[in-house]
Amino acid sequence: MPGAGRAAGVRRLRPQPSEEPPAQEEDQDLLLAAAYVSDAQYNRNVPFETSPRAIRLYYFYNHWTMQVAIYFFICVDLSLALFEEPALFPLPFLATSIAEVLCLTAFFGRLVHFAKVTPQMVFWKDMKNICIMVTIVLTLIDLIIYGSLEAVNIHSVRWSRALRPVFLINFPESRQIRRTFRSIRNTLPDILYVFLLFMFSVLIFSLMALKLFGDRGLQTVEGLPYFTNILEIAFELYVLVTTANSPDVMMPAYNFNWWYSLYFITYIIINTYIFMSVFLAVVYNNYRKHLKNEIRKLAYLKRHKMIEAFNILKVKVGTEFVVTEARWKRLARIVMPHISSPHLELLLRISDEGQKGHVDKMNFLRLADLLNIQVVTINIKRHPLEEWMPRVYQSSASLLVQRMVRHRIFVWVYDVIILINAIFIALDEKNPFISYAEWLFLSLYIIEILLKLYTYEPRAYFGKKQFWNWFDTLIIMAALVATVANTTIQSARKYNSQQILDIVLILRILRLLRIIVSIQRFRLIVTTLINIGPTILTFGGLVLVVYYVFAIIGMEAFHGKVRSFDPNFTTPDALVCGNPALKDSAFARDRYCKNNFNDLASSFVVLMELTVVNQWHVLAGGFALVTHQAAKLYFISFHVVVVILIVNIFIAFILEAFFVAYSLEKSEVETAIEKKIQELGVGIQEEEMQDGKLVDNMDAKDSGFSGDDGDNKRKALKGLYFRIASKSCLASHA
Amino acid sequence: MPGAGRAAGVRRLRPQPSEEPPAQEEDQDLLLAAAYVSDAQYNRNVPFETSPRAIRLYYFYNHWTMQVAIYFFICVDLSLALFEEPALFPLPFLATSIAEVLCLTAFFGRLVHFAKVTPQMVFWKDMKNICIMVTIVLTLIDLIIYGSLEAVNIHSVRWSRALRPVFLINFPESRQIRRTFRSIRNTLPDILYVFLLFMFSVLIFSLMALKLFGDRGLQTVEGLPYFTNILEIAFELYVLVTTANSPDVMMPAYNFNWWYSLYFITYIIINTYIFMSVFLAVVYNNYRKHLKNEIRKLAYLKRHKMIEAFNILKVKVGTEFVVTEARWKRLARIVMPHISSPHLELLLRISDEGQKGHVDKMNFLRLADLLNIQVVTINIKRHPLEEWMPRVYQSSASLLVQRMVRHRIFVWVYDVIILINAIFIALDEKNPFISYAEWLFLSLYIIEILLKLYTYEPRAYFGKKQFWNWFDTLIIMAALVATVANTTIQSARKYNSQQILDIVLILRILRLLRIIVSIQRFRLIVTTLINIGPTILTFGGLVLVVYYVFAIIGMEAFHGKVRSFDPNFTTPDALVCGNPALKDSAFARDRYCKNNFNDLASSFVVLMELTVVNQWHVLAGGFALVTHQAAKLYFISFHVVVVILIVNIFIAFILEAFFVAYSLEKSEVETAIEKKIQELGVGIQEEEMQDGKLVDNMDAKDSGFSGDDGDNKRKALKGLYFRIASKSCLASHA
Repeated sequence: MPGAGRAAGVRRLRPQPSEEPPAQEEDQDLLLAAAYVSDAQYNRNVPFETSPRAIRLYYFYNHWTMQVAIYFFICVDLSLALFEEPALFPLPFLATSIAEVLCLTAFFGRLVHFAKVTPQMVFWKDMKNICIMVTIVLTLIDLIIYGSLEAVNIHSVRWSRALRPVFLINFPESRQIRRTFRSIRNTLPDILYVFLLFMFSVLIFSLMALKLFGDRGLQTVEGLPYFTNILEIAFELYVLVTTANSPDVMMPAYNFNWWYSLYFITYIIINTYIFMSVFLAVVYNNYRKHLKNEIRKLAYLKRHKMIEAFNILKVKVGTEFVVTEARWKRLARIVMPHISSPHLELLLRISDEGQKGHVDKMNFLRLADLLNIQVVTINIKRHPLEEWMPRVYQSSASLLVQRMVRHRIFVWVYDVIILINAIFIALDEKNPFISYAEWLFLSLYIIEILLKLYTYEPRAYFGKKQFWNWFDTLIIMAALVATVANTTIQSARKYNSQQILDIVLILRILRLLRIIVSIQRFRLIVTTLINIGPTILTFGGLVLVVYYVFAIIGMEAFHGKVRSFDPNFTTPDALVCGNPALKDSAFARDRYCKNNFNDLASSFVVLMELTVVNQWHVLAGGFALVTHQAAKLYFISFHVVVVILIVNIFIAFILEAFFVAYSLEKSEVETAIEKKIQELGVGIQEEEMQDGKLVDNMDAKDSGFSGDDGDNKRKALKGLYFRIASKSCLASHA
Repeated sequence: MPGAGRAAGVRRLRPQPSEEPPAQEEDQDLLLAAAYVSDAQYNRNVPFETSPRAIRLYYFYNHWTMQVAIYFFICVDLSLALFEEPALFPLPFLATSIAEVLCLTAFFGRLVHFAKVTPQMVFWKDMKNICIMVTIVLTLIDLIIYGSLEAVNIHSVRWSRALRPVFLINFPESRQIRRTFRSIRNTLPDILYVFLLFMFSVLIFSLMALKLFGDRGLQTVEGLPYFTNILEIAFELYVLVTTANSPDVMMPAYNFNWWYSLYFITYIIINTYIFMSVFLAVVYNNYRKHLKNEIRKLAYLKRHKMIEAFNILKVKVGTEFVVTEARWKRLARIVMPHISSPHLELLLRISDEGQKGHVDKMNFLRLADLLNIQVVTINIKRHPLEEWMPRVYQSSASLLVQRMVRHRIFVWVYDVIILINAIFIALDEKNPFISYAEWLFLSLYIIEILLKLYTYEPRAYFGKKQFWNWFDTLIIMAALVATVANTTIQSARKYNSQQILDIVLILRILRLLRIIVSIQRFRLIVTTLINIGPTILTFGGLVLVVYYVFAIIGMEAFHGKVRSFDPNFTTPDALVCGNPALKDSAFARDRYCKNNFNDLASSFVVLMELTVVNQWHVLAGGFALVTHQAAKLYFISFHVVVVILIVNIFIAFILEAFFVAYSLEKSEVETAIEKKIQELGVGIQEEEMQDGKLVDNMDAKDSGFSGDDGDNKRKALKGLYFRIASKSCLASHA
């Protein structure tokens, strides 16, 4: 690569228009322009100073090591909660506080770095920076107060821990999470009125329930009075909205009189079905609106940055301003240092359509988009075995094997083997015959992979984008390694390591996932899901923030109130989770003792259970019994924030992602690249895709091997081929 | 109205172009054209013969009495299940079978009528008609078999009852429900693959669970073995997808080892969150696609029908074909017999823009849409009291009262009164002071209504579209009547009628809904919900069909297996719901005895509970215990059909309806009408709506009274005013 870069540098020596600035300044300009292009490419929006020193600092600021470092410190900072009281792995306060101060220093350093890069005015106007600084100061104050109180043995509250996710949100790297938070904030006013009306409806129904059932002397299954206190009724009815206590809450009234079921059915239709759908509608509607605005804004900013870059590099040729080819290439190499020469050449041919030796403004502005499109350079070579020993590889026996492997029946046979394997797994493995079968299956799978590697070109088979081949091979290899490791340990020590055995079991079963590879429709669905994976991960960040804050609050409020015992203990203490207040409660009866806030991991599990909603009222009731009825507010607010807001946003996420995947059409830029690839005759046969079996062919390609014809043709052509690594298989599904 | 019609007839006598056919034929043509226009207006798509007799039969076929009659018979047919074994109100088999035969005769008659109207070819090609005929025949066969077996005292199954909803679906009137069914059918292939992949994922996880937990010797809370049978595991995991047994299903493993919670969390994320969202996405996407196609098709058919009508009525004037004004008016009067003359005149002015005495093709094609837009004719008159005794009404005391009532504070005072009322209701009403307060509040509300009627013109106040005024008044009146009735009965008989007391209580509390009227944002949300009401009702029809079929099957399968006892019974029999198989089951422990399939009403309640999902596995487990484990398939298939398909369609329904309501823009036709209303100077001051308080003004208008200014201005103008009864208040909300 550096060689190619120098070659471009040499070409720069050919005569240029006279406006060409001296080399030193030229380098500076290129760096600045490349920074703009890079910002446009990654949708960054950080105003930076244009002095040479600031630009160099800005490059350093955007360097991946810096980004990794800052994420590392954020992770350390967040995971401190694992080691602080109440801890999963207790560490002394001194250790955690030193680690925290270290993290804060790193955050401060990053902020100072940012301040050097960006203009002062902008820096102090940005709420994000203020937020980080305030949080650093507050955390330090809290640390000092807590530390000095601890020194005189007074236990206080480490409240600043709930602020830690601020760092995760406010560093410029977490644009996606911030965007989601903005989306939530914009939704709030609309949601608020619906929520108030919904609460009003719950109250009206509570009043009715009080009047209808309050004086009847009815009893719940537990023998408690039924619907006699307006606050309890309101809570029960709120729980009914979440469906968690249906139909139990209805049964006493329903047993008393059939007609009372109508009251509950009306309630459920209005509040559970209609209001909850309206929440989803409002959230989704706002999400869409917001998304549209963001995309418009991003497109504007991208264009703006590209124009700035163009203005820096432009020279006048004839009547119009253009960027010379040499300069354009140097720019592209600075922006993407690892770009391959053929790929660069391809992009140049697209940008400089007339081959005039320069790129005009319109084509230059597309550069950021062009760089974003992944073009797979397919380097079709002979099979290595064919080169090493052509005689053997081309022998009739070898060709028969190859034809066999390429045949559809080969796939079917292995599908059947997987199914038989599934049945063997389901059977009891105490039988020694079956545990031997395991080795048989493993070797059959390995033979399959070896045969495929024999038939297909290995570098193509394990190409960058051949997800399914990697998937296939990794699953088999992992199972092999784990099984071997397990057997070794077992025979060496006569001891069954539980963890390793579990992993072996899981890997053995995961092998069955290979069946997905064979069924094309399944593969399409999974591909769609994998494509929306990054979006779901962003979402995971959002959930992490909310969970973390609630977990810290929960740990401060409920720590140690409920203790878990070995499940086989039946002492009276163990039956009430170590807290007499839980006697006769549903919490103790269902043995929920382990659902507590005694450390971060347990808290996360409890919050997950609350997110799933079912039985959340039992958890809420339990923690209210060991503290105060007001504790239910914690659980209600968690439900409102996570289930009504965040889960709905998640659904909006997935809906929108799926619609985009379904309606995907190639963008204008992608089309331009494809056209050029075709023009240059270096594309994979498009006509393959024109016939009826469009999807079949595309998938065969995706999985790294197509039918005989395509393969042979490609072999005959040899050399380099390009293909856009697009999601078009989804489009064809729509 | 008939007078006006005759007037139009007289105007027809003025000289017409010579192509005018004789009167007899002219009437025939008009009838045919009107049938086309009417079909276009109501989006009917029934091909009918054009002979005079067929047209008259077609009018009769579409007459509202016929439609009501057919719906009446469908209701009777469906409700027969209430009287048949297992019956809520038992009737002898003879009675119900005679009623059923009657209904079948009516359906057959309707079909014969339809056959006379439509061409034979079309009739026999239409699957709907075939469906109805087959169902009639099958029902008759079933009746005969069942009746003869009954006569020799053999009890058999009335299987044809499950076919009854066919009549509801297949009559041309139920277009909406059929459309939804079509939408579901089109979604099925896409859903199927996702469902298979989902089931595959459940199976893989089941296998893992078997391997991971099967040999551990763990126990559930009930002391049963945990995760030892693959079928049971698969069922438990399916239940976990519905979240109904979370977190209980996880607790034994979680108590054993913390790490096992990761298994369940992964499972929930993949299967509950991602797969269920994908189901929603697929259903919603198909729903939208389908909706778009349907709308396109409907628009095409509408245009086609209007062109046919135009071709029948057209005459040549100059170079173009047109419809003369007189004929146009007669046509409009046939299509909408109850249209008011000013309204008709307004429509004519819009259609005949140049006032040329005829309507051209383009404007004629809009007629169906024009007729569909509701134009409110506002007839502003003086207050009757002002006319009867102007001196008193205009006296300064009277004017003061009027100003008072119009004032914002008047509304606030009553809001406070409602709140106080709410507190009084919440308090114990055993206190005699509080029960007297009830009368005080009632009289305060009545005074409010009387004052409003004194101030505002009563006919305007109770106008057709003044929903909120009607709402207000009806609530008060109902409460008044019920309270008086209750007191009378109570004092006369010294006996508290439970039903009446309940109704009084509910009405008293419903009065609090008046607070919604005062809060404008609430009113907007409720208006939106009411506007999407008809769509939700269609949906209710769909749910009814599915519920009915499942209820009939459920009654045949589970009838009498579970009996309900008085809740105070504690005999051993009552504790196991009369079936020893339920001993120690969760079903009996939760006292679910009344959740049974012993009659239609109970079945519907059970199905409702299954739709809400929570505890459905307890119900399924209970009925599996009293019959066979295979009974769980009934409950699983209900879950798949209702929760995965229908509830998702419902959500898609509401989402789409809300988006439409949010993004509502006036259609081209509505704009044309509004423009004309403005041009003619008979509109309500649009400038009122131009200022900042747009929404305020619109709502003031909706609730039947605006501020002083607007009211006075309008009074000064007098005469007739038009306003489009649109949903624009929603648009302003967006």
